[in-house]
Amino acid sequence: MAAPRVSTRCLQNNGLKRIFSGIQPSGIPHLGNYLGALTSWVKLQEECSCVLYSIADLHSLTIPREPAALRASILDVTAVLLACGINPQKCLLFQQSQVSEHAELGWILECLTSVPRLQHLPQWKVKNASQMNEGTVGLFTYPVLQAADILLYKSTHVPVGEDQVQHLELTRDIARHFNKKYGEFFPVPKAILTPMKKVRSLRDPTSKMSKSDPQKLATVSITDSPEEILLKIRKAVTDFMSEVTYDPDRRPGVSNLVTIHSAITGLSVEEVVHQSVGLDTARYKTVVAEAVIAKLAPVRSEFKRLKEDGGYLEKILRTGAEKAKALAAPVYAEVKRLVGFH
Amino acid sequence: MAAPRVSTRCLQNNGLKRIFSGIQPSGIPHLGNYLGALTSWVKLQEECSCVLYSIADLHSLTIPREPAALRASILDVTAVLLACGINPQKCLLFQQSQVSEHAELGWILECLTSVPRLQHLPQWKVKNASQMNEGTVGLFTYPVLQAADILLYKSTHVPVGEDQVQHLELTRDIARHFNKKYGEFFPVPKAILTPMKKVRSLRDPTSKMSKSDPQKLATVSITDSPEEILLKIRKAVTDFMSEVTYDPDRRPGVSNLVTIHSAITGLSVEEVVHQSVGLDTARYKTVVAEAVIAKLAPVRSEFKRLKEDGGYLEKILRTGAEKAKALAAPVYAEVKRLVGFH
Repeated sequence: MAAPRVSTRCLQNNGLKRIFSGIQPSGIPHLGNYLGALTSWVKLQEECSCVLYSIADLHSLTIPREPAALRASILDVTAVLLACGINPQKCLLFQQSQVSEHAELGWILECLTSVPRLQHLPQWKVKNASQMNEGTVGLFTYPVLQAADILLYKSTHVPVGEDQVQHLELTRDIARHFNKKYGEFFPVPKAILTPMKKVRSLRDPTSKMSKSDPQKLATVSITDSPEEILLKIRKAVTDFMSEVTYDPDRRPGVSNLVTIHSAITGLSVEEVVHQSVGLDTARYKTVVAEAVIAKLAPVRSEFKRLKEDGGYLEKILRTGAEKAKALAAPVYAEVKRLVGFH
Repeated sequence: MAAPRVSTRCLQNNGLKRIFSGIQPSGIPHLGNYLGALTSWVKLQEECSCVLYSIADLHSLTIPREPAALRASILDVTAVLLACGINPQKCLLFQQSQVSEHAELGWILECLTSVPRLQHLPQWKVKNASQMNEGTVGLFTYPVLQAADILLYKSTHVPVGEDQVQHLELTRDIARHFNKKYGEFFPVPKAILTPMKKVRSLRDPTSKMSKSDPQKLATVSITDSPEEILLKIRKAVTDFMSEVTYDPDRRPGVSNLVTIHSAITGLSVEEVVHQSVGLDTARYKTVVAEAVIAKLAPVRSEFKRLKEDGGYLEKILRTGAEKAKALAAPVYAEVKRLVGFH
């Protein structure tokens, strides 16, 4: 077993950045996740000395899940993260439910948050409406558990997409509330607004690419075969102009391909468009598909290799949980003392 | 240290009663608590082989608390329980926050409970209104944490007062819901409806005796001095008739004294009234006060002795938490497996 280098660095991390983020184990991440969050996660672990990534299985229960599917997803996501370049020597990768302090701190923070504050969060309104206003208590309170996830490690920075800004604002409010009531303790975490490329559905480029899209051709999974990737990108909905231009409002289909191409190659949108002068969209789709296939090929083969070694994945999670616990336990012990349990 | 006799018996407790109850650490219990819950707790530990009593500090955060007062209350309540006859050799006495599985199972059960189900609980409506409709999330969700408290030990029976019947019904619903979704696992716990004597305020016999009553003379604390008890009972509000009769509707003041007298002596109401023929209420108050003083004297002196031995109280709680954890951990581990975390 590797020495718990990260843990030690994190524990001594006075005044330095502590970054926290989480991903729900709900199936294999797609190309949009890869080009958005996962690529930035890999960068962050190189740039910062204390980075925590949580596989947020507690959160995944806010929507009904089949136990066997959830169990498989946890290992799948672990394998995907490692295959994408997440390195447990450089960051702290762990399964949320293995660190009891998340739920424990979650309860204490529930006692510091007013019901109306949660009721006003737009995501609750949308999600509850989609459950015929019969949403579960977990679906209602999970932003408080997210606050616990972040604050439990005294995190200072959180990479967020635009849709998460209001939840981070809640976390910041809760941290301030706690500090006011019990004395300065939690850093008020700041957002790292990653300039994420919004990858759109290949079948309907006006909506986001989504794991749960019922149209199978709409979404490229990180572990799709080269044939599947080629098929999906070839069939991508574009318009009747053959030229390759970048105009997301009027030409969302081809612009989505340009976005993907740019993100995959690391070239700017302008460079990608310039390179494609003279290509029609049919030919361009093949170029994009080849770039995606080339980029994802090593991820896919590493994923397959890792999936065959369940014992290794379990060990990674076990070690990660030990390290996370080593950071969380003293923070939560101090919280218990501050609120008066000890 | 005593051998963990209870724990072992409980673990082998297949098909037998497992009784769970909790008390919030919010100041010294009063005479009503003593004659109601605490006396029945002492009886239950004699009658049943597996009885768990939790000092519910997590719940006490649903109302704002000063940390120092909460800390003191936890030790006070522990000392009171022991002084009243709760015997850690015969039951399992522990502090809720020391067993992480309460909050952990609480989260999972939050994901199985709908928001409307909680909104319809009368206690939420009343308590939220008393907080100007700005009640905390903890105040809203605590009945789910209560369900976790009970189910975590696969409890089969719960002593409840009338005001708790609807919360136990919620626990029963959650147990059934879990069993339906994940397979038969939790016993659906039954109520033990203890015929509790409702002790009323000595200043306003139409309302319950309460720890938080602003009128100091209204409430007899278990640890009051003989002088305080005598004063409070002498000043108890009664009516202008001098005879001692039992008629709670028309003569609530004197009837409350009869209730207390009967409960303290173990005699029936009829016997107590019969014994008091010829006494006027002023004289009767002295009789009742003397009975209360005599009953509480050993409790008070034992409480004082225990309070001076903080180390002993801490040890009792530490040992209790170890035993409770030994029961809770395998149950929660199985829950995690059932929902798909492992």
